[in-house]
Amino acid sequence: MADTPDCDLRSLSPLQLFERVTEQGEKVRALKAGKAPKDEIDAAVRMLLSLKLSYKTTTGQDYQAGLPPKDLVLINNGTTKEEDEDLVDPWNVQTSNAKGVDYDKLIVRFGSSKIDTDLIIFLERATGQKPHHFLRRGIFFSHRDMDQVLDAYENKKPFYLYTGRGPSSQAMHVGHLIPFMFTKFFLEVFDVPLVIQLTDDEKYLWKDMTIEKAHEYARENAKDFFACGFDVNKTFIFSDLDYLGTSAGFYKNIVKVQKHVFFNQVKGIFGFTDSDCIGKISFPAIQAAPSFSSSFPQIFNGKENIQCLIPCAIDQEVLQRLAHSSCLTLLCYPPQLSDTAFRGPSGYSDNSQCFPSTDMNWFFHTFHGRASSGINKHAFSGGRDTIEEHRKYGGNCDVDVSIMYLTFFLEDDDRLEQLKQAYTSGELLTGELKKVLIETMQPLVAAHQERRKQVTDEIVKQFMTPRKLAFEF
Amino acid sequence: MADTPDCDLRSLSPLQLFERVTEQGEKVRALKAGKAPKDEIDAAVRMLLSLKLSYKTTTGQDYQAGLPPKDLVLINNGTTKEEDEDLVDPWNVQTSNAKGVDYDKLIVRFGSSKIDTDLIIFLERATGQKPHHFLRRGIFFSHRDMDQVLDAYENKKPFYLYTGRGPSSQAMHVGHLIPFMFTKFFLEVFDVPLVIQLTDDEKYLWKDMTIEKAHEYARENAKDFFACGFDVNKTFIFSDLDYLGTSAGFYKNIVKVQKHVFFNQVKGIFGFTDSDCIGKISFPAIQAAPSFSSSFPQIFNGKENIQCLIPCAIDQEVLQRLAHSSCLTLLCYPPQLSDTAFRGPSGYSDNSQCFPSTDMNWFFHTFHGRASSGINKHAFSGGRDTIEEHRKYGGNCDVDVSIMYLTFFLEDDDRLEQLKQAYTSGELLTGELKKVLIETMQPLVAAHQERRKQVTDEIVKQFMTPRKLAFEF
Repeated sequence: MADTPDCDLRSLSPLQLFERVTEQGEKVRALKAGKAPKDEIDAAVRMLLSLKLSYKTTTGQDYQAGLPPKDLVLINNGTTKEEDEDLVDPWNVQTSNAKGVDYDKLIVRFGSSKIDTDLIIFLERATGQKPHHFLRRGIFFSHRDMDQVLDAYENKKPFYLYTGRGPSSQAMHVGHLIPFMFTKFFLEVFDVPLVIQLTDDEKYLWKDMTIEKAHEYARENAKDFFACGFDVNKTFIFSDLDYLGTSAGFYKNIVKVQKHVFFNQVKGIFGFTDSDCIGKISFPAIQAAPSFSSSFPQIFNGKENIQCLIPCAIDQEVLQRLAHSSCLTLLCYPPQLSDTAFRGPSGYSDNSQCFPSTDMNWFFHTFHGRASSGINKHAFSGGRDTIEEHRKYGGNCDVDVSIMYLTFFLEDDDRLEQLKQAYTSGELLTGELKKVLIETMQPLVAAHQERRKQVTDEIVKQFMTPRKLAFEF
Repeated sequence: MADTPDCDLRSLSPLQLFERVTEQGEKVRALKAGKAPKDEIDAAVRMLLSLKLSYKTTTGQDYQAGLPPKDLVLINNGTTKEEDEDLVDPWNVQTSNAKGVDYDKLIVRFGSSKIDTDLIIFLERATGQKPHHFLRRGIFFSHRDMDQVLDAYENKKPFYLYTGRGPSSQAMHVGHLIPFMFTKFFLEVFDVPLVIQLTDDEKYLWKDMTIEKAHEYARENAKDFFACGFDVNKTFIFSDLDYLGTSAGFYKNIVKVQKHVFFNQVKGIFGFTDSDCIGKISFPAIQAAPSFSSSFPQIFNGKENIQCLIPCAIDQEVLQRLAHSSCLTLLCYPPQLSDTAFRGPSGYSDNSQCFPSTDMNWFFHTFHGRASSGINKHAFSGGRDTIEEHRKYGGNCDVDVSIMYLTFFLEDDDRLEQLKQAYTSGELLTGELKKVLIETMQPLVAAHQERRKQVTDEIVKQFMTPRKLAFEF
């Protein structure tokens, strides 16, 4: 990272830094307008991202064009919580705010960065592909050190993807799969190894569940990953209960993290108390260890310190940072996305369960056939009480669950915008909107179900066998 | 355990129970005096042991002949400590008492039982062998459920031995090996599998040591076990850092223990605080898990619930009990025996380092040749200041380190008694006593050194490879 300008910038005041970022932003725009060579633009964007990071590090706030720094607060690294702050950790999402969790505030508290237009443009330029609509639409809204991965990608340095899930039920619902859809996009764009951790040990520790049941759920969930279309030659799926017993490298990393994380830290971050079992208290280390490539010697040929990109809920951010890895990159989404009850993302209220999964049968294996009645009966609507009122005042996209789902699953930006406008103007009725949603979801879910039917125990075994993947290290 | 009389005894008062034990003791003595058939005597002894256990459970005190129950205290299971109590846990041994830790009081606090003459006689009868001098001399002084193992042995039910060590240095000194000498005796008497855990992960967590160094010490210590003469066909030695990565069964048991042990328990028992790392807090589960036979599917053919006998320091007692295993038998010695500085056992002051290991070069690899000067210079003596005074008043065996060592290493009871009497009377001088000690130790240590020289990496690998042992299950 020779172009990191930290050394020059440490002595600058917040206002001076603000001016440097503004200046560099103008430079980037000028280069783009003048159709400067790609290399030159990329270098300028990298410098801009670094300057923004320095600004953030110094002020604890994201750079916002036209808004000079004021009311500076100290960064507390997300480890303490003020009276009026939201509680967001891997096992709790609570807010006293009727509008839901304030993710902008959370970014500041966690000391991560907002995914802004500059980063998205840079990503598009680096990969030569249109960024995923989850990025374009701000569903993934925060990152940490994404420039490190892009730097690795551009310089053909190795890196890998790591994501995971706590297998809390046999069948996954559509909400569970959203982070994996996003991960699959990156797997295809970057063409790097992917490791997926199934924390069956975590579920056993937290839930009233036998160890056998947790392990069974892990294997069942692995089938859904196959149905998502992950490439078996590039993906290693592992259950902790299995893999910990087959990899000394993994356990060594767990112990290393365990030595450097203290009870008062996890107590502060995760709200553990003296009445918690000792398994919960040390568990964060098990979730942090896969971010070290030496946990997978069979994949990385024993190589250490390979950069790791983790698409994760922002509540996992602080957990991963506990690992003190210098090779960690995070891309974050709101924790609700993978919650057991599929709730609204940022912008929708986090306190309402839009689609209580038991009512909706919103699970893949029962979706087909019942989807339409489920959506028609249960999906919370932003429409008016009568057709006349709807035509007159229009619908409210901000609270409409059909719009929320379409934001996730309808890839066509123009079509989505068109639907939103028609709904807002009153031209499109709630029933018609729900029909569009059903038409969008049914083929997606049918395809998933079809692929899931094809999963055999042999395929699951292939995915879950520790082995070399289709990459040389 | 059809002969456990618990059902009848629950309604009895402490005094009534006391009378039942006394009565049964008299019955046993009468049977022995009358040379009754072996079966009849054994049944009576078993009943006596069960009655003593019931008495202990009810009163929190060991039965003592002629001393009816009084000043009854509630059993606190060793989890809390009164103001004037000694602090004894796996990482601390502290006492404010000048005479050292009061082990009788500790037995009551931990709720275990004293190894008494009845148990020793029963052991001799069951095995047909003279009990080890560590038992005869009260060095192993406490047990829990030893009758379960003896019952298993008599009825040809399977059981196994488990012991362990934290590998804190490359070379072990004689003090470290005392528990293993005892374990070897049981291995030969009972002819059952033995598992030895080397907690290199623990040493890494507790000490300022790299993970590689801790792992290296584990392998070096394994060489000393070979030198002790353990049979490779009956012994599995494992380093946690290695074995956890090769046995899913072991990890599953660890998680099971971790789920059922709470921070406030380990806090109370081991004195953990909020400033301790999370690895320490969950570590007790790793030391408890080998007491479940399913941690070693390769040895026990996947069978669960096989009785486990653990020769251990009494400070480990409460740790093992955290596992809530119903198949656990413990035989305890004072924690000092395996301490890094070889201190005195019960009866000797626990606060004095009799043989500071660095001064003494009391390690096996440097012992030979320097032993005599070490003993002559450093071994604390119970002798008088001048020969005249010694002849007149005699020596004090209770504080003499040579006598202490001879108690451990001189197997001949008559010879030991003779030496003690001669020293107490003043007939034997300190220099002469030290000469006897040197003559006793040198051949033992030389033999150990000779065997240790023969250890190859191949032998260590054999011991440490997870495999079936020479037993069918």
